Amino acid sequence: MQLGRLNHVGIAVPDLASAIAHYQEVLGATDITEPFDLPEQGVKVCFVNTPGHDGTEGTQLELLAPLSEDSPVTGFLAKNPLGGQHHVCFEVPDIGEARAEFERQGKRILGPTRIGAHGTPIFFIHPKDMMGQLTEIMETPKGNH
Amino acid sequence: MQLGRLNHVGIAVPDLASAIAHYQEVLGATDITEPFDLPEQGVKVCFVNTPGHDGTEGTQLELLAPLSEDSPVTGFLAKNPLGGQHHVCFEVPDIGEARAEFERQGKRILGPTRIGAHGTPIFFIHPKDMMGQLTEIMETPKGNH
Repeated sequence: MQLGRLNHVGIAVPDLASAIAHYQEVLGATDITEPFDLPEQGVKVCFVNTPGHDGTEGTQLELLAPLSEDSPVTGFLAKNPLGGQHHVCFEVPDIGEARAEFERQGKRILGPTRIGAHGTPIFFIHPKDMMGQLTEIMETPKGNH
Repeated sequence: MQLGRLNHVGIAVPDLASAIAHYQEVLGATDITEPFDLPEQGVKVCFVNTPGHDGTEGTQLELLAPLSEDSPVTGFLAKNPLGGQHHVCFEVPDIGEARAEFERQGKRILGPTRIGAHGTPIFFIHPKDMMGQLTEIMETPKGNH
């Protein structure tokens, strides 16, 4: 296991439209993807693209709003009504190998490996096993490196 | 104002040595800077370097442990004993211009502009004005772009 790219930071927001306006007007974001529903995760999602070094793509901010009352983000927002940092997501070259490695370490993986917001397989690890941080592991999209 | 690079994500940890071991052993971090004290912020700090695209430096993870009982991180850890995501930090080309812009917007800036962990001027904005996220603004180190 080698630490991969920090693909994104997941940020819970009460409302996607006002969060988009905040990132545009307050922080000057110019590149925000079109929102879409991710029913498997119970969230509505868009990405704020940030610049990396030398013209590369930087770590994204993934804005997450609840799709329904039983969304995993609903509980987070009950505790943090303004929103806040929700998870971090690291890339790995092979999702199966990574899952086996975290299982070998005895980390609690939350549910099955599934397709995430970037169209590649992902899984989440329990924050209690990751120093308080809900941690997403995602397979690097093909074509990226 | 244009959204700059996500320089780092600040992560509060109860103990720096065990956090470093976690990032090395669980996540396979290979590049972690030597810890140092940042008495002005009341924290002991080190950076976990993550890879960006195409061999560039990626967004860092800034591990923050309290330096004393009255550290700003102490209160965070009282609520989150395992640790967790503490702040996000975006780069700007000119700290004075950025500060004036956030002041113009009526955002509550926490204290004076001071020298941060990268040796460049920084300030923090109140999470209540930033959708629940404590936000650090830092001037890009010279030589980086």
